[in-house]
Amino acid sequence: MTTNQIWYLRKRPVGKLADGDLELVTEEMAPLGPDMIRVRTIYLSLDPTNRIWMSDMDGYLPPVPIDNPMRGGGIGIVEESNFDDVPVGTLINTGLSTWAMYNDIPGGMASVLPSIPGVPLTAYMGPLGATGMTAYFGLMDIGKPKEGDTLVVSAAAGAVGSMVGQIGKIHGCHVVGIAGSDDKCKWLTEEAGFDAAINYKTEDVGAALDKRCPNGIDINFESVGGEIMDVVIARLNDFSRMPLCGLISTYNDTDGSPGPTNFANLLMRRTTLRGFIILDYFDRFPEGAQAMAGWLMEGRIKFETDVVQGIENAPASLERLFTGANLGKLAVQFGPEPD
Amino acid sequence: MTTNQIWYLRKRPVGKLADGDLELVTEEMAPLGPDMIRVRTIYLSLDPTNRIWMSDMDGYLPPVPIDNPMRGGGIGIVEESNFDDVPVGTLINTGLSTWAMYNDIPGGMASVLPSIPGVPLTAYMGPLGATGMTAYFGLMDIGKPKEGDTLVVSAAAGAVGSMVGQIGKIHGCHVVGIAGSDDKCKWLTEEAGFDAAINYKTEDVGAALDKRCPNGIDINFESVGGEIMDVVIARLNDFSRMPLCGLISTYNDTDGSPGPTNFANLLMRRTTLRGFIILDYFDRFPEGAQAMAGWLMEGRIKFETDVVQGIENAPASLERLFTGANLGKLAVQFGPEPD
Repeated sequence: MTTNQIWYLRKRPVGKLADGDLELVTEEMAPLGPDMIRVRTIYLSLDPTNRIWMSDMDGYLPPVPIDNPMRGGGIGIVEESNFDDVPVGTLINTGLSTWAMYNDIPGGMASVLPSIPGVPLTAYMGPLGATGMTAYFGLMDIGKPKEGDTLVVSAAAGAVGSMVGQIGKIHGCHVVGIAGSDDKCKWLTEEAGFDAAINYKTEDVGAALDKRCPNGIDINFESVGGEIMDVVIARLNDFSRMPLCGLISTYNDTDGSPGPTNFANLLMRRTTLRGFIILDYFDRFPEGAQAMAGWLMEGRIKFETDVVQGIENAPASLERLFTGANLGKLAVQFGPEPD
Repeated sequence: MTTNQIWYLRKRPVGKLADGDLELVTEEMAPLGPDMIRVRTIYLSLDPTNRIWMSDMDGYLPPVPIDNPMRGGGIGIVEESNFDDVPVGTLINTGLSTWAMYNDIPGGMASVLPSIPGVPLTAYMGPLGATGMTAYFGLMDIGKPKEGDTLVVSAAAGAVGSMVGQIGKIHGCHVVGIAGSDDKCKWLTEEAGFDAAINYKTEDVGAALDKRCPNGIDINFESVGGEIMDVVIARLNDFSRMPLCGLISTYNDTDGSPGPTNFANLLMRRTTLRGFIILDYFDRFPEGAQAMAGWLMEGRIKFETDVVQGIENAPASLERLFTGANLGKLAVQFGPEPD
């Protein structure tokens, strides 16, 4: 018998996630069914979208029903297999499974990780995972970076933003990141190769953008929303592009969120804004993964991982995304990597 | 000597246009210069963008400087010519000239109207003019109508909106217009062939949209902004398109305008929003004009013109656009058409 631990959603959070919204339950698992694999979670990926799934917001996936296991995924390893093609020891992207120590998955649905020498396992949640693909397709498909364009990236030190800026640099953009601490800003300019970084907690973002983007802004890769987005929209150039990846500043709002007061500038500047969800690009993942893997192996993409230990810390760790505590990809480690 | 009458911009309007913001001045004209033509205005086209040009808003063209003639154009006829290729009697689109009885224009810059049998002169401000081209390119290029799509058009009885809906019908869309009177709604459904029309002054627009758009909204051709735009955004389908043509409800605002509170739905629904200005499509006008002229001659496009008489009534007539008084293309007739 396998004993499982599963985080259940008990209440829809109001504002910030609170104690009791989720509950960690210990259960005995039924025997593994035919053609199924049992996957032990090594890392649970924490992403802003998790907060949307907890709410009753009409998002791109239905809300997690109350008293169901919380939806999520990360990286796991097969510990038991009734499916010959995916043997014990195989590393798996657990995708849209649950916040549990073990998930039973149909073997035919398993997303087996490729093995790239020298690449750490966490890269498959970062540059080679959903966040890397989000950065790649949002920037390339909607942002359409050209040599000499000015690219502004919000949440720049996050898992997506840090990739966006580096892909922009590879394409010859002038890249300015907005982040929430001096340490992050330092990492962006000194490690990730951004041309400039603005600490929105200590700087006047509008004045800083005027200084750092003397030619205006051609691409705003937007993940945050709120007042800072408004300040960026005011500085867009004619025919600018705005991939709309997220609005994390609003996900904890309880009374609705005001829209951008500079909305009319999208008209005057003839901006193309497009919302996107990485699942829309699922068919094109091989293209994105190949590009990112190449840049990673060439050393042109740096990434950081912020790993919290212990399944019991999963809900509390999600808050790090909203306070801006994390640098790079946030994950919770449930158990050891294989040797 | 020719005596001219010219509307000068004297003050930037605060809110609604007021007496004294513009002044009608009578002036003697200098003799016509070499290679110039003197064009008498028959019709002045009034468009929402005129109000933007009066303000100090950072629009797509610079504001009209104070104490300069007001920018505008329409249809005129050559009354004197120093340019052999454009003789007296030629009909001209006066484009970006001024609110004046006479404009002297370099003959080489003149936009000569084609002559299409059976088409009234006013059509060159409507389906065959800038408003028709705005409708055509905004819908075709950004809206990308497909058979069976649901298209919602705000300011539907206006010069642009009425064309958008009819082009949408030609492409097999289910077309719902939003307008400001029962008479307009009746014209939209009975004359212009819209599937439904909603009177926003007497109906609950959200409830009416739910009823009239049972399959959601694929295209929102937006010219108005404000609360109604928000109600439409809330009902967009996945992968919807939103050509952003104007935000007329905000142009008289003095304290800034709130942004759409349903902005996040552009993300969740993966909407493509693009601001556009018809000048961006100038190179492609022949394509648009050919399509519109064909439909017009086949009787598939109906249009109305709301003509006010007298140059002295030009500023006061502009207000008709903002109160929704006009059905179809608003123009002021300064003088007679040729026989």
